[in-house]
Amino acid sequence: MTTPEAREKAVLEAVRKRRELVNEAIPEELPIQRPERLYEASRYLLDAGGKRLRPTVLLTTAEALANVDPLTVDYREFPTLDGETIDIMDAAVSVEVIQSFTLIHDDIMDDDDLRRGVPAVHKEYDLETAILAGDTLYSKAFEIMLETGAKPERAVEALEILATTCTKICEGQSLDVTFENRAEVSPEEYLEMVEQKTAVLYAASACLPAILLGADDETIDALYGYGLDIGRAFQIQDDVLDLTVPSEKLGKQRGSDLVENKQTLITVHARSQGVDIEGLIDTNDVDAVTEAEIDDAVAKLEAAGSISYANETAQELVEQGKARLEVLPDNEARDLLCEIADYLIERGY
Amino acid sequence: MTTPEAREKAVLEAVRKRRELVNEAIPEELPIQRPERLYEASRYLLDAGGKRLRPTVLLTTAEALANVDPLTVDYREFPTLDGETIDIMDAAVSVEVIQSFTLIHDDIMDDDDLRRGVPAVHKEYDLETAILAGDTLYSKAFEIMLETGAKPERAVEALEILATTCTKICEGQSLDVTFENRAEVSPEEYLEMVEQKTAVLYAASACLPAILLGADDETIDALYGYGLDIGRAFQIQDDVLDLTVPSEKLGKQRGSDLVENKQTLITVHARSQGVDIEGLIDTNDVDAVTEAEIDDAVAKLEAAGSISYANETAQELVEQGKARLEVLPDNEARDLLCEIADYLIERGY
Repeated sequence: MTTPEAREKAVLEAVRKRRELVNEAIPEELPIQRPERLYEASRYLLDAGGKRLRPTVLLTTAEALANVDPLTVDYREFPTLDGETIDIMDAAVSVEVIQSFTLIHDDIMDDDDLRRGVPAVHKEYDLETAILAGDTLYSKAFEIMLETGAKPERAVEALEILATTCTKICEGQSLDVTFENRAEVSPEEYLEMVEQKTAVLYAASACLPAILLGADDETIDALYGYGLDIGRAFQIQDDVLDLTVPSEKLGKQRGSDLVENKQTLITVHARSQGVDIEGLIDTNDVDAVTEAEIDDAVAKLEAAGSISYANETAQELVEQGKARLEVLPDNEARDLLCEIADYLIERGY
Repeated sequence: MTTPEAREKAVLEAVRKRRELVNEAIPEELPIQRPERLYEASRYLLDAGGKRLRPTVLLTTAEALANVDPLTVDYREFPTLDGETIDIMDAAVSVEVIQSFTLIHDDIMDDDDLRRGVPAVHKEYDLETAILAGDTLYSKAFEIMLETGAKPERAVEALEILATTCTKICEGQSLDVTFENRAEVSPEEYLEMVEQKTAVLYAASACLPAILLGADDETIDALYGYGLDIGRAFQIQDDVLDLTVPSEKLGKQRGSDLVENKQTLITVHARSQGVDIEGLIDTNDVDAVTEAEIDDAVAKLEAAGSISYANETAQELVEQGKARLEVLPDNEARDLLCEIADYLIERGY
């Protein structure tokens, strides 16, 4: 039986190797060209780091589907299920580029100063450049997805997934903004928002290789479901970590969601248990809050059982997601997809 | 021989009929759905009006290619060159949706208050909603373009055009912003910026039906060139109109480009003739400028020959664009495309 520590080590190693390959591919697909300032701003957040979890899910799913040993086949000439080769790395870069576009625009909307430990793009550059950098990444993601060399009918289906995913992310972000001004949000509403805002890009990452490599509809649907489940679990865990991980490690102020009245599964649950969420933290200013205030708020949320509730919900989603992977051949890459699912809710940051 | 007045009447009538059909199609392709506020904001500018010139170019080009009499064939079941039918209206709506997305984000970047005589989306709603409304239209345009029912290989090519067009629009907008802070911009640099910021969407509008209906590469390229030429002419004329049309008719302050130090072909030419462009208008505040100041500035630009120079350049581009239409069958729709080209630089607003 694998211990969480051994699993975390294995996952981090697998992620690290794929991350290195994705990091090599990003400047190839998105070179700094004229106008330089625009492309520098577009690359700024991508170059600042990131775990590349979505591309890792995508590349590992491709390996599981093609039934090849992990990291033994060139992602740039990857075998389809009907004996051709495509560039599956393009698809991986495309979803990371979409992720980066949404972060740039989200940081403007939330007026967040920091991201990945560096200034947000609209702080490092300016509002105009940040809007435009996001817009550029948006169309570049479509251009890159069109370069895989997959059969036209598969490319069309992949682009449909990419476009509807982007639409859902916008809808989810819109719901998220609306929720900040609403006192009562049900756990179902919250989970719907998380599905649209976050989980759909994991779902796209998991099902895109199935589409591009030529898998059947049952497999495509099961992998989409896996991505939705682990994506929701990921966001719930992110909300837990926002309360429990020291600010230095988090790369931003711990508890900032609470200060900014963001709805999370934790606050939604706590309110249903009678906790006065608005009274937990006096200030709305992330720079003014004290660690002691946040410790006190977290203690109240723990007492209401809300953090346990979030952990249990995430755990259930991960189990459900893993069960969906039975459509895949039994191989090392499939095991890794299970471990990634576990890691998403066991990770410390 | 057609007089400009007769031509304007014919073009306006042709545009009006297609506009009505496009206006019917927009709510069908982009219904107000949950989250309502997001979709209302996304539709706000589309519903506020607009001449629908790009969709008109697209639909008329389709008619010329298919060699059918204008407005006699249902755009929703339009004949391809190889005997199938596709929904060419989807392509027309898609380019208009892209246009609307760029206007919403451009108005934020330029902090313009008015558009089409109504408040800009970030003024009517707020910054967050305007960013998100633009982002939603962006992916919706791709979704809608994917619904034409064209053969997959044609759909893929159409999406490549759409994606690269969006990238170029961002690059052009970035150059435009950079130019505001630069004293010296050459006419060549200015025309390159205009090509990327404005003309590429006309080029896409003209060549997309050729791609989707299955025309040959020579025809696709010629139509792309026609769109680039008339798009550049359109923008040059827009810059002339910004100086010469009364504010009420323009839907915004006349001369606002001069006040905001926007480079236009007119200012680029005038500077090369020794005119002190920065000294033409004292204020940088559109609300503070007087009509007399603008009259005085326009007189100086006229004296330097800069407005004539812009008019002549636009005229040459239109002639060049019309000549490219010889790849099309000689029919009524082709004549209309010539008339649209002439109209773009003869129009009074």
